Amino acid sequence: MKIQRIIVTGRLREVIRQYVDEDLYEYKFMAEEEVNEADLSWADAYVGFAPPAQASLTSVKWVHSLGAGVDAFLFQRPWNKAVLLTRTICSFGERIAQYCLSYILRDLQKHDEFQAQQQQYRWVPATPHLLHTQTVVVFGTGEIGRELAKVLSSFGVTVIGLSRSGAAQIYFDQVYEMGRAEEVIGKADWIISTLPLTRETECIFNRNFFCQLRHAGFINVGRGRTIQDEALVEALATGNVRKAVLDVFAQEPLSKDSLLWNHPNVIITPHISAVTTPEEAVQCFLETLREVETGNVPSNIVDLQKGY
Amino acid sequence: MKIQRIIVTGRLREVIRQYVDEDLYEYKFMAEEEVNEADLSWADAYVGFAPPAQASLTSVKWVHSLGAGVDAFLFQRPWNKAVLLTRTICSFGERIAQYCLSYILRDLQKHDEFQAQQQQYRWVPATPHLLHTQTVVVFGTGEIGRELAKVLSSFGVTVIGLSRSGAAQIYFDQVYEMGRAEEVIGKADWIISTLPLTRETECIFNRNFFCQLRHAGFINVGRGRTIQDEALVEALATGNVRKAVLDVFAQEPLSKDSLLWNHPNVIITPHISAVTTPEEAVQCFLETLREVETGNVPSNIVDLQKGY
Repeated sequence: MKIQRIIVTGRLREVIRQYVDEDLYEYKFMAEEEVNEADLSWADAYVGFAPPAQASLTSVKWVHSLGAGVDAFLFQRPWNKAVLLTRTICSFGERIAQYCLSYILRDLQKHDEFQAQQQQYRWVPATPHLLHTQTVVVFGTGEIGRELAKVLSSFGVTVIGLSRSGAAQIYFDQVYEMGRAEEVIGKADWIISTLPLTRETECIFNRNFFCQLRHAGFINVGRGRTIQDEALVEALATGNVRKAVLDVFAQEPLSKDSLLWNHPNVIITPHISAVTTPEEAVQCFLETLREVETGNVPSNIVDLQKGY
Repeated sequence: MKIQRIIVTGRLREVIRQYVDEDLYEYKFMAEEEVNEADLSWADAYVGFAPPAQASLTSVKWVHSLGAGVDAFLFQRPWNKAVLLTRTICSFGERIAQYCLSYILRDLQKHDEFQAQQQQYRWVPATPHLLHTQTVVVFGTGEIGRELAKVLSSFGVTVIGLSRSGAAQIYFDQVYEMGRAEEVIGKADWIISTLPLTRETECIFNRNFFCQLRHAGFINVGRGRTIQDEALVEALATGNVRKAVLDVFAQEPLSKDSLLWNHPNVIITPHISAVTTPEEAVQCFLETLREVETGNVPSNIVDLQKGY
């Protein structure tokens, strides 16, 4: 595929500008809101975290998402199947694994309990729990889920995966089809969702799901709209969910009105578990560009049917 | 070595009682303060976290420490070389590795920063740091230091060890002799001490040591008396030490007077990083008893010269 003219949008565009060769390709660096139909008619490729606000991406040959999730482009939106869609895959697995591990360890090592004691000058020993005593159920066994399973299993954690196919995967003790979730989620000390937002995953974590948990920790590093928020708040009240660690939300930034902000058993982080760093974004973009131009199928191509 | 009569002391003695066979051996279960010379004349072996308060351990054949550290028995005390001394070695390495990792990850993942934001309903993304960017200098390359190095190196952390011999060890990128500390500690993002308390290690972390650190995190899971407390407080003030995570103290429980309790950059935990659980204590004791009786040199024998 011949690529000559490229529009780059999003918060990283000025950094990307410093790394690309403007003699090799023609670039426009602009905000998503500024892109109009004329720009898109001019361009062969569009790069960004989200589509242009005012124009559609039907005329370009290739769209490259600077994020790992592509729901901004595909979810409940039409997509021209002739347009190649690729996404950024870099250290997301490593980042998300360390994010999740940090909050699981904080809980097992009783950080908050000891911090409260320290504030009162109190010395009351309690024994931390070890990772190998834990069972973690991971929704999604793709790139990110696998890296997570690799790290957790290295500590002896029992890791159970749930995926569309239920196909066995390295580092998972077992993998089940999504439809069989009921058989395993009751055993979970922790549930971690790495799921993308698709037709199948929207509100998958609903009342029916949460009522089957037994005092589990729930970590969402996938997408906010996979959760029915009221159902989660109820589950925190009943104790089905012991603690929630949420990095993604249906609306971001999370609305000031949300009940989650000051819930004592909810930890909120501002969508930072899998940040795309400028260096990695550039590297992934340039590698994908090279593959697109040489006619290879990029390994980070999005399956339009699956939506990720 | 023939062992028939055993005194078991310390907080775990009633649990140990449930596991041992009182038909095979004669036992006395008592508090350290209750043990007198007559009890020790009666006994072949003494088991506990510390020696009796009122009597000396010169007449028994074997002493087994329920903790990993044996400074309570050896440091600045006479010891009869004819008495075999063994110590408990069980999941301490695993426990300490997870303790240290939990606090390093908490820092790299900016837990406190995001928690402060949550309390103010603020959404300000910031990028967590990944473990592979870190250099950790570990004092002590024994059982515990090695397990720590194994875990850290699995995440790509650069792990440098310091030991008496400076001999290379698996999982360490480099190991130096203790005397060469100055060459490496300036590079450390984190210093972790697993050192026992001996003549050589008392106050090893002094003014001269701390002034060579460059904004490092300092974690002590060894022994409190290896640190000169005023020097640490100074180093926190100058910024040579960015944050201290302390699980052990010269005096335990830590005195209410200590300046450390409410220091904003100090985390205090009540000596829980390597708790001896009852099950593990019993298992290690019984295994050592078996080896002692069959005449093998137990792998957990204490080198009286080194003091650990």
